[in-house]
Amino acid sequence: RERTQAILSHQSFQRFIVSVILINAATLGLETFPAVVERHGVLLTVVDHVALYIFAAELVAKLYVERWGFFRDPWNIFDFTIVAIAFAPATGGLSVLRSLRILRALRLLSVVPSLRRVVSALLRAMPGMSSIVVLLSLVLYVAAVMATKLYGQASPERFGSLPTSLFTLYQTMTGDDWGNIAREVMARHPSAWVFFTIFILVCTFVILNLFMAVVVSAMDE
Amino acid sequence: RERTQAILSHQSFQRFIVSVILINAATLGLETFPAVVERHGVLLTVVDHVALYIFAAELVAKLYVERWGFFRDPWNIFDFTIVAIAFAPATGGLSVLRSLRILRALRLLSVVPSLRRVVSALLRAMPGMSSIVVLLSLVLYVAAVMATKLYGQASPERFGSLPTSLFTLYQTMTGDDWGNIAREVMARHPSAWVFFTIFILVCTFVILNLFMAVVVSAMDE
Amino acid sequence: RERTQAILSHQSFQRFIVSVILINAATLGLETFPAVVERHGVLLTVVDHVALYIFAAELVAKLYVERWGFFRDPWNIFDFTIVAIAFAPATGGLSVLRSLRILRALRLLSVVPSLRRVVSALLRAMPGMSSIVVLLSLVLYVAAVMATKLYGQASPERFGSLPTSLFTLYQTMTGDDWGNIAREVMARHPSAWVFFTIFILVCTFVILNLFMAVVVSAMDE
Amino acid sequence: RERTQAILSHQSFQRFIVSVILINAATLGLETFPAVVERHGVLLTVVDHVALYIFAAELVAKLYVERWGFFRDPWNIFDFTIVAIAFAPATGGLSVLRSLRILRALRLLSVVPSLRRVVSALLRAMPGMSSIVVLLSLVLYVAAVMATKLYGQASPERFGSLPTSLFTLYQTMTGDDWGNIAREVMARHPSAWVFFTIFILVCTFVILNLFMAVVVSAMDE
Ligand code: NA
Ligand code: NA
Repeated sequence: RERTQAILSHQSFQRFIVSVILINAATLGLETFPAVVERHGVLLTVVDHVALYIFAAELVAKLYVERWGFFRDPWNIFDFTIVAIAFAPATGGLSVLRSLRILRALRLLSVVPSLRRVVSALLRAMPGMSSIVVLLSLVLYVAAVMATKLYGQASPERFGSLPTSLFTLYQTMTGDDWGNIAREVMARHPSAWVFFTIFILVCTFVILNLFMAVVVSAMDE
Repeated sequence: RERTQAILSHQSFQRFIVSVILINAATLGLETFPAVVERHGVLLTVVDHVALYIFAAELVAKLYVERWGFFRDPWNIFDFTIVAIAFAPATGGLSVLRSLRILRALRLLSVVPSLRRVVSALLRAMPGMSSIVVLLSLVLYVAAVMATKLYGQASPERFGSLPTSLFTLYQTMTGDDWGNIAREVMARHPSAWVFFTIFILVCTFVILNLFMAVVVSAMDE
Repeated sequence: RERTQAILSHQSFQRFIVSVILINAATLGLETFPAVVERHGVLLTVVDHVALYIFAAELVAKLYVERWGFFRDPWNIFDFTIVAIAFAPATGGLSVLRSLRILRALRLLSVVPSLRRVVSALLRAMPGMSSIVVLLSLVLYVAAVMATKLYGQASPERFGSLPTSLFTLYQTMTGDDWGNIAREVMARHPSAWVFFTIFILVCTFVILNLFMAVVVSAMDE
Repeated sequence: RERTQAILSHQSFQRFIVSVILINAATLGLETFPAVVERHGVLLTVVDHVALYIFAAELVAKLYVERWGFFRDPWNIFDFTIVAIAFAPATGGLSVLRSLRILRALRLLSVVPSLRRVVSALLRAMPGMSSIVVLLSLVLYVAAVMATKLYGQASPERFGSLPTSLFTLYQTMTGDDWGNIAREVMARHPSAWVFFTIFILVCTFVILNLFMAVVVSAMDE
């Protein structure tokens, strides 16, 4: 076990794994070009399988070394899930599952130390934002229920049902094309500008403060 | 009265109210799906009424406990208004008032302590921004009067009247689709780029500083 | 002279001037509604003229009190210019000059102390940004000359001449509709994505740092 | 050599070079107006050539003074490259190379001290951002491979190939028109909202933190 651990944590082994991830990411990218698949399809599949078995072998070795401690490190669970997803499509033929194979490229986040640090910092910033995200979701839900009831008939494509309204108001919140969305509704409900103006003001204000929460938490460190 | 207060401030009672709010928010959301209303419409209405009477009873109990002190806490006025709105539609048949029932979900803001704290922080940030908001409104009003006079005939749908111009320039201020708005006007008034460029520069600059005001006030705390 | 100064700086006089500005801003706004002009046109014109003469009288009184010192205060020059503009349209019949009368509402900035402070703070933040604004203008100019030469024929409406390109790239810089602008060019010059991607990355990066310059200067105070 | 150095670093010489850059930038701008080229085309070409030879002479003089030390200063390499590009079009007739002549205006960045300082500050801010930029590129690549596989047939113009998807998702990341892009895909894949919502949330969150990295590094100075 100690020798296995020595190999796993050796710098050349780390570099080898990074290379395999990069090569695999490249072949999965090349698979999207029909011309390349026609000429080198077999090679791409072989590289893909070899990469997958290397990842699997690495995980098995880690499991052998760390035993049950393996599952205590969230990065290991991340790696495990990504490789598990990659094995799943072998059974079914679902294109969604096949397309998820590219998630393996995200293993770079757990293997390259500088990326690992950035992601950890991002995750640490999350708890400080949770209350504001809940607040924003609540505002979005309330506004979506109101918009569906009030404007569902005036603009069925955008506010015809609750999920549609949620999507449209999420889009409005990001400021994308909200003028045209509002104008379409205002053609039938002239007072709808009140709804949209308040919604955008509230969202802008809350997001501004979400932003502040992140600044302040970043300063504290 | 002391026993009533003990009940009201008990943690299980708080959790019970949170559950009622969440269930009520869910039923009001489900009401937007015609298929659900057709099959379970009666159930949804019953749940809605029960929730409303629970909220009303809670308010009455609070009033009994706190007497006139009740109206000194702005959160109580918030809760009171929201429940009062919910009673209003019983008399009339206005769809706007009916759609406002979902505002009851916002009671979460006054009941859940962490949300309550976030909203309080947001409200405290407001006075520091008031001067800049007044400045921005003034710029918007001046620009809207000018645009209506100058471009009202060239682009009647966007600048035909003062309210329309105010809406269009508010949209421009958020950066949404302003290029097309300006181009439509510039087709008849080629020099309109001066107006739009200055307007956007001024707004961007003022908003940038509005932002700064919030940062600095956040730092001071 | 001392008595005149006492009147000018008296709080009730200041409030009177603020009221005149607000009333005048309202009548100039009402002038944009044809129905109101038809019924109360004479009244609006009278109020407008009275307000203008009050402003002119105030300025003359100030000039009498402060003599040549009057022109040393930039706020006085601001007030003077705005009132002078308002007199100009009396001679010509240009609609642009008439529409500039609403600029008088901006006198609020010089009269209301809190707004005056905000504007002063905004102006103080400007020198710290000047280098970055020059840099951004230079990038915009260089990109516009290149775009006119390279894409002028592929997309004449957007890049047909240098002023058109400057406008389009300014719009691109604000992120408005740049995807469609780029796609139109890419239909004839597939490699145009390089130009647009670099342009947006450079602008985003410079603006991000413009922003930082403002934050840091705000912190220093 | 010492006399040459004295001339090169003399303030009047610096001003002379700045003037030549500005004049050259203006003539290259004027070259985009066909009417001007028709009447003063020869003059513009002469000014352009004279400016180029002045820049070349300045570089040769600097090389003579600093010898191999010349290439140790990145600003010199920047100037050298820009002038070299300007000479290149003399051989070929490529419009791209001709249009790159305007890059000479960027020499202002190396000659004007205040701009030089701003650019240096911008470049110093870059290393602190590199990890987050790599993370963002990785997210973009993974999302583009998935989108090409999943939505390539539903929306071939936007997700038909890997480069197209990369461009579309970069556009989505900047918030431009993403609502319409998503709606087009959702017409065939109703569950695509999951993909777009997650992609935008992740990008917004990472960019927010990219921003923070810049703030914090700016504070440290
Ligand atoms: Na936009
Ligand atoms: Na848009």
